[in-house]
Amino acid sequence: GAVWSEPRSGMPGPCRRTPVPGVLGFWGGVGGVGITQPSLELKQSRLKVRFCTNESQKSRQELVGLLRRQGFDISEGEVTAPAPATSLILKERGLRPHLLVHDGVRSEFGQIDTSNPNCVVIADAGEGFSYQNMNKAFRVLMELEKPVLISLGKGRYYKETSGLMLDVGAYMKALEYACGIEAEVVGKPSPEYFQSALKEMGVEAHEQAIMIGDDIVGDVGGAQRCGMRALQVRTGKFRPSDEQHPEVKADGYVDNLAEAVDLLLQHATK
Amino acid sequence: GAVWSEPRSGMPGPCRRTPVPGVLGFWGGVGGVGITQPSLELKQSRLKVRFCTNESQKSRQELVGLLRRQGFDISEGEVTAPAPATSLILKERGLRPHLLVHDGVRSEFGQIDTSNPNCVVIADAGEGFSYQNMNKAFRVLMELEKPVLISLGKGRYYKETSGLMLDVGAYMKALEYACGIEAEVVGKPSPEYFQSALKEMGVEAHEQAIMIGDDIVGDVGGAQRCGMRALQVRTGKFRPSDEQHPEVKADGYVDNLAEAVDLLLQHATK
Repeated sequence: GAVWSEPRSGMPGPCRRTPVPGVLGFWGGVGGVGITQPSLELKQSRLKVRFCTNESQKSRQELVGLLRRQGFDISEGEVTAPAPATSLILKERGLRPHLLVHDGVRSEFGQIDTSNPNCVVIADAGEGFSYQNMNKAFRVLMELEKPVLISLGKGRYYKETSGLMLDVGAYMKALEYACGIEAEVVGKPSPEYFQSALKEMGVEAHEQAIMIGDDIVGDVGGAQRCGMRALQVRTGKFRPSDEQHPEVKADGYVDNLAEAVDLLLQHATK
Repeated sequence: GAVWSEPRSGMPGPCRRTPVPGVLGFWGGVGGVGITQPSLELKQSRLKVRFCTNESQKSRQELVGLLRRQGFDISEGEVTAPAPATSLILKERGLRPHLLVHDGVRSEFGQIDTSNPNCVVIADAGEGFSYQNMNKAFRVLMELEKPVLISLGKGRYYKETSGLMLDVGAYMKALEYACGIEAEVVGKPSPEYFQSALKEMGVEAHEQAIMIGDDIVGDVGGAQRCGMRALQVRTGKFRPSDEQHPEVKADGYVDNLAEAVDLLLQHATK
């Protein structure tokens, strides 16, 4: 565990576009613990690991590529992301989406019939959130007898090097208000989303699973509402005021992901 | 009054961009009645008339020009519109706006200091609602200690020949959600807005003023909440289901504006 307790340089600011430990959510099971890291101890620990993210601009393939280049040993099968989760939901319910999504994530919907749409799927479309594209999505909804709007997360905003950027949640609210409907959210902190990830891992929320994340509401609060324990890492989105959050109390705090891995491995080997 | 009871051709569909009697709100005072029309009877009746609109893409000058070309005898001083009303509010409160508005209405803010903004004003900006412009407005708000967002109306959508268009209310909701704030709405059905128009006319809501409009909630309900009586015209936005609206009951219905004028003149001359 010594490797992990060393302070690591290049730890993230609150920038969602660079997938780094402190910013995205990690969780796993078997004995209650797990983390995805290129650590021999982890590999030998038999812990199940899952990378649970709200990233909706990138495909799993792109995401895994980025993480691997940063040294995380992870495969596409270990990723729970809103786009593939939505793709499954669409198939199950026979929904044909009008997609208002970023080009980077369009491949996740490659197998989905998008002709004659009977629902709208929005994700963080970035520049794609033009007035014209918003009107298109709005008109599709207004032509449906029972409008179905699926939103990949409901983030308010995030930070890029150029400044704060509106996230999908803001545009979800715009369409909800205009249509007088409520969107279905696929992503943290939706309980269904956590549960789909737990199911894919084959672990139970209680006792078996622990969430590690930097977002006190989305990661920690969301996981706890599903019966999981949750650690908050003091990196990324973490703010000192989170430790006195009026509604959410983490089961523990760690200074960085390395410390979390140490803690989990100690616990797992007991 | 005979002139007015004739069915008139060219009455409006639900298209806000063509300012026509059934679509915009009209109201006046003195004895409780008034309407703006190029009618000799009206001119001789001494009724005060005011044109109370939520139009936020056009200046009063442009609006009056359009109405005059349609035969309505109206001057800029008889118009209550969100942009000049907002301009007054900004002056009174020493606010310097970042403007996210349509170019057509920018002239109404010509006298306002927009340097170093301490609030954001949004109106129906149409194509101006780009992701880039929304982010700009959002960043201005997030940099303020107490973010002030003023929205010129809170309409959900309107109809143009090319189809349904999202209105300012949807984008207001997006910024409200992203910033965790509530906007101040300048426009119908805000009570402050009706009251500012009443004040400009120098009439009292009770007994003296009557609203005539096609929007059951925005015109009729809004005016009634301010103590006015309100007629709904069965044109424009009117839908037969409005007469069984669960929350708002008009004080009367007329088939068109002509009938409303007849009714008011009969009442006024008693």
